[in-house]
Amino acid sequence: MSTVTPRQRQIVLRERPTGVIGPSTTEVVEGPIPTCGESQALVRVGLLSIDPTIRTWMDDAPGYLPPIGLGRVVRSMGAGVVVESRHADYRVGDVVTGVTGWQEYAIADDRHPFTVVPPGLGLDLPTVLNVLGTTGLTAYFGLRDVGRFTAGDVVLVSGAAGATGSVVGQLARAGGASRVIGVAGGPEKCALAIEEFGYDACIDYRRDDVRRALGSFAPNGVDLFFDNVGGAMLESGLDAMARHGRVVLCGAIDQYNATSPVPGPRNLTLAIFRRLTLRGFIVFDFADRYAEAQIELAGLVRAGDLRHREDLTPGLDAAPGVLAGLFRGENRGKALVVVDPDVTLD
Amino acid sequence: MSTVTPRQRQIVLRERPTGVIGPSTTEVVEGPIPTCGESQALVRVGLLSIDPTIRTWMDDAPGYLPPIGLGRVVRSMGAGVVVESRHADYRVGDVVTGVTGWQEYAIADDRHPFTVVPPGLGLDLPTVLNVLGTTGLTAYFGLRDVGRFTAGDVVLVSGAAGATGSVVGQLARAGGASRVIGVAGGPEKCALAIEEFGYDACIDYRRDDVRRALGSFAPNGVDLFFDNVGGAMLESGLDAMARHGRVVLCGAIDQYNATSPVPGPRNLTLAIFRRLTLRGFIVFDFADRYAEAQIELAGLVRAGDLRHREDLTPGLDAAPGVLAGLFRGENRGKALVVVDPDVTLD
Repeated sequence: MSTVTPRQRQIVLRERPTGVIGPSTTEVVEGPIPTCGESQALVRVGLLSIDPTIRTWMDDAPGYLPPIGLGRVVRSMGAGVVVESRHADYRVGDVVTGVTGWQEYAIADDRHPFTVVPPGLGLDLPTVLNVLGTTGLTAYFGLRDVGRFTAGDVVLVSGAAGATGSVVGQLARAGGASRVIGVAGGPEKCALAIEEFGYDACIDYRRDDVRRALGSFAPNGVDLFFDNVGGAMLESGLDAMARHGRVVLCGAIDQYNATSPVPGPRNLTLAIFRRLTLRGFIVFDFADRYAEAQIELAGLVRAGDLRHREDLTPGLDAAPGVLAGLFRGENRGKALVVVDPDVTLD
Repeated sequence: MSTVTPRQRQIVLRERPTGVIGPSTTEVVEGPIPTCGESQALVRVGLLSIDPTIRTWMDDAPGYLPPIGLGRVVRSMGAGVVVESRHADYRVGDVVTGVTGWQEYAIADDRHPFTVVPPGLGLDLPTVLNVLGTTGLTAYFGLRDVGRFTAGDVVLVSGAAGATGSVVGQLARAGGASRVIGVAGGPEKCALAIEEFGYDACIDYRRDDVRRALGSFAPNGVDLFFDNVGGAMLESGLDAMARHGRVVLCGAIDQYNATSPVPGPRNLTLAIFRRLTLRGFIVFDFADRYAEAQIELAGLVRAGDLRHREDLTPGLDAAPGVLAGLFRGENRGKALVVVDPDVTLD
């Protein structure tokens, strides 16, 4: 555990980006470490979860959370350790996850609660932040509750080798999908999807004709399409849907950096003819059921039935670059930034 | 009841239309009246239901039913009377509804069954074909089963004064919607929606700024959007949705005549942020529950709680023109073509 210093470094939003974030989007600033007031705990941040959705919070546009204010610390999930506590729920030494922001220290209180990681999980902290964090939870609730996954389904996952997609594919496989088809960018990711994450097939959207490949891999159509990408991928996926198919609208990474409105799928009328259901969701809505999912996900990891990868980059300052890299497909596994390597689960 | 003549007139598909149907799309031909074989009944057609969906069947494109073959009678719902029967389910004199096609006589058998209209309904045949036919049934199942309508919902209906929309609006009102907002083309239809069909407000998409009007009529958002139109209307409606809102994709009349793919809604990412469900459906999927709906719909009509309008045009030959007129918004109420005025319910 690191020593508490009187000042901390933070990354704030300096200007709203147009398109991909750049050097002038954020700024590293120094500020005092917040004082731990009554009914608060001070958290030393160890790890940051770098998620595509952070990009959506930088726009001054209606979203599912208010935009990050200019000059404010960039909102982010993360993990840390309690170094001081005046709150009954947190004890010094507790490892916690929550909205840390891109900074070295954060305050936990009833308005901004953190979740204490239970001891004895048998998992390391990057795994917890990935599989038991919003990534794994998004896969879990998206597939089961939003997509109403049923054994026997033909499942299609875009972003198949990505943090969320890789969990979706494995949960579908473990749950008895009749076929799990992925779409990913490049031969390396496709190989990863098949060899590491157990996909039956993976389409390389950069090289393959996605529509034709789907026709061959899913000749009777796709029952459940878990879409992390949006845009042209969503349109190709819709074309491949079976009657009464379900489309989980999880992410639209293709659109988060768009500088003008992106045309929607030209084939949405298919949703009528084929009786499709398209459903969007935000994992936070399932917060009261995180615990049940985490128990199951942790069990799958310990049993070796859920493989996962974390892509660790050292140093708080790396966060903006790692976020930008997500949209170029640079990460291999869940992108995490290590703010303090001494924050670990024993 | 008319006399059976040895030959009949039929309207067949001559060529696949590009865009709106024209004079060369269909052709009136003469053919023999089909012979009533073993386990068949011969139906004298009285009324045709002219529905926008007929246009989709004319394309050689994947739909929810096979395309109408070139040279084949145009597929259409309709009503008629049994004039000869060698089938236990049909007696001479029974009034029936089903897929009559654009012709004077049709065959009913186990592969192409018709529904016998029960006696004593207290409704005339045009009303039966409208409110108790696919139009009313589409409104009923679309609102309740697909849209999961709940009392208190703020409901938005496009094509508000149309055949389906007018029933949707009234069912929502009768079911305790907190507000029922319509969108229609022109002041006459808007007045009809409010005065005749009980809408709280109706937006004239030709004159009003739909987005702004929705912001004022539904300041807290729309819970249930029943879309008969598609295209730009769907996009505007999505913008107005409340969190966890439901969008019923019933029709896309704006797109059925498109000669190139129509861009989808540019704001579909909202479905993620606002946790929307978009669901397409075809009323035929609910066929095993038609009876329950028809009992309820008939009761509402008899009680004066469900107003309806039929727009009758005489003569089989009028059918193509009436179909084309639907897309110009020419009909006032449910478009029906009278093939034989003597076919009635007593």
